[in-house]
Amino acid sequence: MTQSHESPIPGIQDVRAARARIARLVRETPVVSSPDLDRHLGCQLYCKCENLQATGSFKLRGALNAVLRLRESGIAEDVATHSSGNHGAALALAAHHDGRTAHVVMPENSVDSKVRNVRRHHGEIMFCAPTHQARDAGLERLVGLGLVPVHPYDHPDIISGQGTAALEFLHQQEDLEVLMTPVGGGGLISGSAIAARALRPGISVMGAEPAGAADTAESLRRGAKVASWSPDTIADGLRALVGDITFPIIRDLAERVLTVTEAGIIEGMGLVWRHLEMLIEPSSATVIAAIREHPGVFEGRKVGVIFSGGNVDAGAFPHFVASGDD
Amino acid sequence: MTQSHESPIPGIQDVRAARARIARLVRETPVVSSPDLDRHLGCQLYCKCENLQATGSFKLRGALNAVLRLRESGIAEDVATHSSGNHGAALALAAHHDGRTAHVVMPENSVDSKVRNVRRHHGEIMFCAPTHQARDAGLERLVGLGLVPVHPYDHPDIISGQGTAALEFLHQQEDLEVLMTPVGGGGLISGSAIAARALRPGISVMGAEPAGAADTAESLRRGAKVASWSPDTIADGLRALVGDITFPIIRDLAERVLTVTEAGIIEGMGLVWRHLEMLIEPSSATVIAAIREHPGVFEGRKVGVIFSGGNVDAGAFPHFVASGDD
Repeated sequence: MTQSHESPIPGIQDVRAARARIARLVRETPVVSSPDLDRHLGCQLYCKCENLQATGSFKLRGALNAVLRLRESGIAEDVATHSSGNHGAALALAAHHDGRTAHVVMPENSVDSKVRNVRRHHGEIMFCAPTHQARDAGLERLVGLGLVPVHPYDHPDIISGQGTAALEFLHQQEDLEVLMTPVGGGGLISGSAIAARALRPGISVMGAEPAGAADTAESLRRGAKVASWSPDTIADGLRALVGDITFPIIRDLAERVLTVTEAGIIEGMGLVWRHLEMLIEPSSATVIAAIREHPGVFEGRKVGVIFSGGNVDAGAFPHFVASGDD
Repeated sequence: MTQSHESPIPGIQDVRAARARIARLVRETPVVSSPDLDRHLGCQLYCKCENLQATGSFKLRGALNAVLRLRESGIAEDVATHSSGNHGAALALAAHHDGRTAHVVMPENSVDSKVRNVRRHHGEIMFCAPTHQARDAGLERLVGLGLVPVHPYDHPDIISGQGTAALEFLHQQEDLEVLMTPVGGGGLISGSAIAARALRPGISVMGAEPAGAADTAESLRRGAKVASWSPDTIADGLRALVGDITFPIIRDLAERVLTVTEAGIIEGMGLVWRHLEMLIEPSSATVIAAIREHPGVFEGRKVGVIFSGGNVDAGAFPHFVASGDD
């Protein structure tokens, strides 16, 4: 039994339906700002704190929407995915809310904190060798056993769910001129673009991507999805390749995807720690790096950014806290 | 020139006036909760996030109120205090907002991150030997030079300012049965008790104090302020002695001050990290420890707690993140 979709590309009605579906299970995360940080960055910045979402990232939104859609379609089987990060923990909790179990294929070299995060949210872990092939093979085995796969981003229900963060954001802060999110596989920016362009047709939707994982920016430049990329970035949440569904959405609805340096990401984490008193993960900090490294794009504008997550490895903390003041 | 007060004990009208005075300069911090954490603790918990306040603690509220009250009284001199922590940074920023400078006497062994936090908020630091006598002597010298001292907690304007957090909280979450804050010198619980008992006469106001710095609990037991105490706790924000103004307020308006263990504080930081995705400083975690260590007091009740700050030393982070799951 499979779900049917008229088009794999969701519309604003799907994002609204997702919001109604998941509202009681997700946090309406706060929007924060800092006049000092604004002066430093030269724009008016509003930050939507999905780092404070349950499980520590926006991923819970899409995972819940996908699982509850399965429920509506009468599909009661356990779910499966491969992930070494936030989607695994999110799918684990989403499945648990719905009385089922998520099985997560994780590379055997995954960091302890991420393994614990999946377990804490009631996920079952199947370890595999740390290769793409082993991950795919592991997931195939689980699907062969009757589990339902839930892709981390290239899936209409995931995209609609992720779009609910922007939907909330645009109600919390109505006068944004720019909406920017980090870009990995493209689930968050796709959902955000669908919501934002429907609610505020004139808004500029932008993405921020590490230069070391810039397959989306390169795909946009070429006009076609690049087939492979060897990511090299500390932003562990953004190492995925843009998807078949997310690429055309980004191409059609986003204005630009800006690339950022590794040093800029670290500095962005420090700026947020010092000015907004929050610990965000490197992926989240790409949006701050984008403003610093492309100031002309943002100067004097009202810029909304989504902090995608806050699951930092313990080891990273002293590193950026000790970094210089601004 | 000095300010005149009919009574050193502020009333709800002083807290309301403080709120009007400081509103545009402080953040209305969010209130967060977690059904999972509620199940774990056996009560309905609502957490007011002053760890996300500018400068990383509630202290900005009182410092701004005190400085702006000086302004209203025509006192334009620079201000001075001694502090190795959050009050120093808060007073520095408050003074800067008002176009003056705060001079902060700090022990020469203060940790780097706290020194940086004062400097970042434009405070001038005067280092001294790490003794109470040297701190007092340093502050006396500054006062002799014409600077106006602003006590960290035993001051009506500071207490009124700190009370604005509870005032906000009780509007954000109207049905609280208990309001609990950490207790150090008593500024936060005093202001909170004044606001809460005026707005919700039936509410229970409680404090949480490390057993190693339990001078307030001991003073309440004796019916008189203890003269000295050698604090021994990782909750660096709570090592102060209860004040001459704060003690009678706590005695008359608070129901109980509960003591907590050091292990409970560390565990509280871990619970908040895992369930609310936030890094709070040890002082803040006393309120979680109090619920875990005195469960009968809170069982089934709607409990509001104020997280006082989020200024954690880098070294503490790996420690509690690596601590066990619940």
